[in-house]
Amino acid sequence: MTPVFEITARDSQSQARAGKLTTPHGVVNTPAFMPVGTQGTVKTLSIEELKACGIEILLSNVYHLSLRPGQKVLEAAGGLHCFMAWEGPILTDSGGFQVFSLASLRTINDEGVIFSSHLDGAVHRLTPEKVIEFQRAIGSDILMPLDECVRYPCERPEAERAVARTTGWAKRSRESFMKVISSPEGARDPLRDFSAAPRPRNDEMKDGVRPLLFGIVQGATYPDLRQEALERLLPMGFDGFALGGFSVGEPRGLLFELLPETASRLPAEKPRYLMGMGEPLDLVEAAACGVDLFDCVIPTRHGRNGLAYTWEGRLNLRHAAFETDPKPVDPACECWACRTYSRMYIRHLLKSDEMLGLRLLSFHNVWFYGRLMAMIRLGVTRNQLTGLRERLANLYQPRLEEAFP
Amino acid sequence: MTPVFEITARDSQSQARAGKLTTPHGVVNTPAFMPVGTQGTVKTLSIEELKACGIEILLSNVYHLSLRPGQKVLEAAGGLHCFMAWEGPILTDSGGFQVFSLASLRTINDEGVIFSSHLDGAVHRLTPEKVIEFQRAIGSDILMPLDECVRYPCERPEAERAVARTTGWAKRSRESFMKVISSPEGARDPLRDFSAAPRPRNDEMKDGVRPLLFGIVQGATYPDLRQEALERLLPMGFDGFALGGFSVGEPRGLLFELLPETASRLPAEKPRYLMGMGEPLDLVEAAACGVDLFDCVIPTRHGRNGLAYTWEGRLNLRHAAFETDPKPVDPACECWACRTYSRMYIRHLLKSDEMLGLRLLSFHNVWFYGRLMAMIRLGVTRNQLTGLRERLANLYQPRLEEAFP
Repeated sequence: MTPVFEITARDSQSQARAGKLTTPHGVVNTPAFMPVGTQGTVKTLSIEELKACGIEILLSNVYHLSLRPGQKVLEAAGGLHCFMAWEGPILTDSGGFQVFSLASLRTINDEGVIFSSHLDGAVHRLTPEKVIEFQRAIGSDILMPLDECVRYPCERPEAERAVARTTGWAKRSRESFMKVISSPEGARDPLRDFSAAPRPRNDEMKDGVRPLLFGIVQGATYPDLRQEALERLLPMGFDGFALGGFSVGEPRGLLFELLPETASRLPAEKPRYLMGMGEPLDLVEAAACGVDLFDCVIPTRHGRNGLAYTWEGRLNLRHAAFETDPKPVDPACECWACRTYSRMYIRHLLKSDEMLGLRLLSFHNVWFYGRLMAMIRLGVTRNQLTGLRERLANLYQPRLEEAFP
Repeated sequence: MTPVFEITARDSQSQARAGKLTTPHGVVNTPAFMPVGTQGTVKTLSIEELKACGIEILLSNVYHLSLRPGQKVLEAAGGLHCFMAWEGPILTDSGGFQVFSLASLRTINDEGVIFSSHLDGAVHRLTPEKVIEFQRAIGSDILMPLDECVRYPCERPEAERAVARTTGWAKRSRESFMKVISSPEGARDPLRDFSAAPRPRNDEMKDGVRPLLFGIVQGATYPDLRQEALERLLPMGFDGFALGGFSVGEPRGLLFELLPETASRLPAEKPRYLMGMGEPLDLVEAAACGVDLFDCVIPTRHGRNGLAYTWEGRLNLRHAAFETDPKPVDPACECWACRTYSRMYIRHLLKSDEMLGLRLLSFHNVWFYGRLMAMIRLGVTRNQLTGLRERLANLYQPRLEEAFP
């Protein structure tokens, strides 16, 4: 039987590793970047375009999908993969983060959360069990348990309470997960559900590969709390571990102070996922700390704002400097947008509020992230990651705010 | 030397004809539909997608392009084709219609129009000569002279005044056109300008084919006025004739009362262009009246509003009936959107304000229009247009308002 996670190479100069993560919908080469498809679509992009960018796994979200289109529609589609016509793996976030940031929260207690939808104000209830059942029902490949994600800064008592709640919920999530995947309904080959649907089947499906459940380590900026959280999660038997509660407003310096130790304490043989990160330099530096999975809205959201990620650094295509610039967005890039369109044209599209401009920059940026991850993996395999780290450190100032004061 | 327009087949049951229109950027098979790329982009679509839809010629617009990005930028790009990366023919409308509908008009007299931009209120002046020079400078294949387009209903004195002004402007436009294309600047191979630019060249360019200038026949709903306008335009030597001032609010019945005679009076050997039309049934019926060229925002604008054109008629994808419908938008359609995505998914995208939904319906609709025109041409060539006319009459009620009361 294929192991869930196999480490195929290690970098001698850092903690970085390259590996293969096997899911019901195929294998993901790690370190991997997951574009964010919150509402069942990576904004502006088609699945063909995502594949062309070398993307192997997408992230979607229980909070958004459960509100719209809802479980009934997703089940009628034969699952989320069929619904969005994406044949590769999907990781679904539990929605904890969104409940605390988007919804107006009504009640949170050890049982779960009650909140009002940001769409129509309707009252909904999420429990650890419901979150797992929903993810299983829509055919997610990697499930995340409900967690309580705190903002930075967070006082220690609040962080302690959130860790206690998150680990309690993790236990119930794991129990619920074992129940749904071992029930006749849950244990069946997930592709069996899809065979009746008119969508193409994924040939990379490995027989007998079950969905995966990750544990989420919280603990804010308190290393001992994070250690305690991890120790309570370890015996529960998760398939991988996520670092939650980063990228919530803390200074970058603090994150990279905490990350090496926090990451290295996670079980070495299991995949590690740093939630919600990040800028190109963050990705390579976190990979150097031994992180395997990333997700972030940056390439698409910043693309829609006119920002391009290139091998010359960031470019703001709205800038007047590009008014008559006939060069492609990134002369070193071979993506479809760079092969076809010029900076001056894209600037015109952005100034004219034309959707094609948002498409082109989203595509280019996801392509850039796809190439970046391929180079990180190659850097590990060839033991040359240090060169790439230096190159990115020169190109990318740590924070966007510093580049665009 | 290749003739500008060659009629290759005629329908025996109607006035429809199929032909080939040769422009500096290639040959257009007629009857042809031109998607509208007002701001130098057909909204949401890439040029690859337009080509995949079988589109051979685009329409753009002097009013919009001269305000943004402006002549300086377009010249720096090596012309509009290079700017938007479209290698095929482009017809540019003069902007008369937009001056009267979008801008706040300051002055109109026989000299030209002075107006305030709808973008920033800045005052601009258009004269027949400036409009021709602009179109020549950006490398348009088919130029349209400045005209005064009146709305429906239009009292006779106003229509008479507009005809007099439009024909006076036509004469000056033609003189200006002859000057710019016979000057050393204007006479040079338009591709010479492009050779320095980094964009691919169009191999279909025919040596010695110059840009074309069409005359615009106005006259509102008064047949004798339209006849008078035509008679004044004929001696000026235009390469083709456009029917302006239709699709400006008149009842469809009135249009198709006027169109057969109005179209048949245009010179049979020159291309005929019905400006701003229309619905699928309008296209086939106007083609049956002998019209060769069409443009309309319908496939893209209605697509962005959730409306799909199919071989089963119009579908409003926002409708709750499609909430769990796994079928493609049009089961009879082979376009990329229909091969990949379901009605239920597109409905979800529309409800979630996701741009991919607007892209998919715009693409599907332009594909439908591309297929429709190919079927009209085939209908003429095989002398089977009547069957297609009946099929569309059954599928498409005359007006959208009637389909969606």
